[in-house]
Order: sequence, then C-alpha cells, then structure tokens
Amino acid sequence: MASYKALFHINESEKWNTVMANANNLVRDLGNGGVTVVVIANGEAVRDYAYGNEEFLSAMGETASQGVEFLACRNALVGNRIDAALLPRWVKVVPAAVTELVTRQADGYAYIKP
Amino acid sequence: MASYKALFHINESEKWNTVMANANNLVRDLGNGGVTVVVIANGEAVRDYAYGNEEFLSAMGETASQGVEFLACRNALVGNRIDAALLPRWVKVVPAAVTELVTRQADGYAYIKP
Amino acid sequence: MASYKALFHINESEKWNTVMANANNLVRDLGNGGVTVVVIANGEAVRDYAYGNEEFLSAMGETASQGVEFLACRNALVGNRIDAALLPRWVKVVPAAVTELVTRQADGYAYIKP
Repeated sequence: MASYKALFHINESEKWNTVMANANNLVRDLGNGGVTVVVIANGEAVRDYAYGNEEFLSAMGETASQGVEFLACRNALVGNRIDAALLPRWVKVVPAAVTELVTRQADGYAYIKP
Repeated sequence: MASYKALFHINESEKWNTVMANANNLVRDLGNGGVTVVVIANGEAVRDYAYGNEEFLSAMGETASQGVEFLACRNALVGNRIDAALLPRWVKVVPAAVTELVTRQADGYAYIKP
Repeated sequence: MASYKALFHINESEKWNTVMANANNLVRDLGNGGVTVVVIANGEAVRDYAYGNEEFLSAMGETASQGVEFLACRNALVGNRIDAALLPRWVKVVPAAVTELVTRQADGYAYIKP
C-alpha cells in the first residue's frame, strides 16, 4: 500500500476549523498507516496554538493523538511575541515555516492550503 | 511534447471566477493535449455546483467540454445538505477532496490555489 | 548540499507583505546558494508592481538583488490595463502565470501560497 504525505499550510486564524476538519477527513479516509499528516502554522495562525479556547485545543490534542503533527514557525512566534512555553506539548517549533514547506515538498509531501 | 497535470483547489465561493479564468487560460496556453486540468471543490465552494446561476453553470459546462474535470467533495456536499442529483452532469463526486489533493499530487499534478 | 526551488504565488494585493517576508525568511534561512526563489503574481496583485509605493518597491528591489525572481502574468497586466513599461526593471513578464505555476512544479519547485 502506498503511503502518502500531506502538508497543510495555515497562516490565517479563521482557517483553523477547516484545516482541522480536512486533516481529520484525510486520516479517516486513508487510515493511520496510509498517510503522514503535518500541519504547519505561521503568521497570525500561530496565536491559536497559545491562545485557542479549551474546546479547540482539546480537539487538536485528539487529532495529534491520531498521529497528526503540528508545527509552529519560530519567526511567527517571535513576531507575535509568543513564548514557546505557552504552546501545547504536541506542538513542535521549527526555525522557519517556509523552509519546512519547501524541504518537505522536495521530500514528496503534497501541499494543501485550506 | 511534455504533458502536464494541474489541480485547482477551491473552497471559497468567491474564488470561482478566478478559478474558471485560470483554468481557461491554462487550456488555451498549453492546448487541449498539453495539459490535464482538474478542479476540486470542497467547503462552501460545492454549493455553486448546485446553486450557481445559469451564466456561471453554462460557462462551466463549456470549460468542461474542453476537457477540464470538475470534482465535488462528498463530505462537503453532505455538510452543505446538497443532493448529488442537483449537480451538473459533468461534475463527479469524490469521497474526500483532501484525499484527491494528496493522491493526485503524488501522481505528478501541480497544485494551484487561486 | 541540496539546492531547493520555491514558488510563491500571489493573486491578492493584501498578501504582498507576507509574501515578501516569507521570501526573505527563506533566503536568509537556506542561503543564497541553497534555494532558488520565484514570486509569481497574477490577478490584482500585479497592480502593485506598477503602483506600489516607494517603500514597497524599494524593499522588493532589495529582495530582487538577493536573487529572488519576480514574475508578472501578462494576462493579468492586460486585464488590469497595465503597461509593462511601468514595471520595475527586475520584474519579468510571462505569458500566463498558471502555465508557470504548472511547468515549474513539474520541474521540482515547491508551491507556497501565503
């Protein structure tokens, strides 16, 4: 069975619900072993990692427990004055989101911008 | 001659005019045999397949007759309570748009989000 | 060292600041020799090439001098009645942005839509 790789890019807070729904649909449709799903947030969208409400963060934690990876751009955290200590434990900080977007596509990830 | 493959992703109704113009430009520029063009709609954008006005649907029908494929996400149809019987005959329903976006990119399609 | 290729697509004027910041971050992070960066503008976003204010155009010129390429879609210039003679000297006009987006992804460019 082919194993796919998907990269969701989000830089606008208002798109989080769509990104979460799409990521969950993808995992449901292709199965845990059939796809690697990574969500990369930069711009204002990193704020929701730190300041999202309980319902949102709890749903994200559940999605993370399905194997979906959540990344935050350090440039965006600095630009939004967000202490990385405020992020949920399942969020990984990367130096630059754009670099991840480029290197992972070179590594075979499909790009999706909801 | 190289044959290219292009995937337009639309999830916002307001982007339909741009998607249609871009798809038409691409077919005009690369020619019918030079490119395979697929438009994938999810989110609210699937509504326009069912409820778009006559002018819009007639223009889409003409583009479809040029070989451009139009896909609708079943998850989005269900979420928007749209009966698939309402869709124009040239629209094909797929189980999950995100899965198409991932598997087709793995198959060499370029992704474009107007 | 791997050399990456990145394609930023912009069709909305309001996204220019983000595109410029992302392009600069990418060059800074991967270095001049580590990445080829191309910015493709179509739709209303081509207007800013011609009518952007001095600060914006000067910053773009600096980014261009770092090796980032800026392309303008001729279809969009015509649609916005912009004379190509108005464009900064570092902007190159291409016949159709969509064709560039497709052929360059086929050539290994990663697509990013800020």
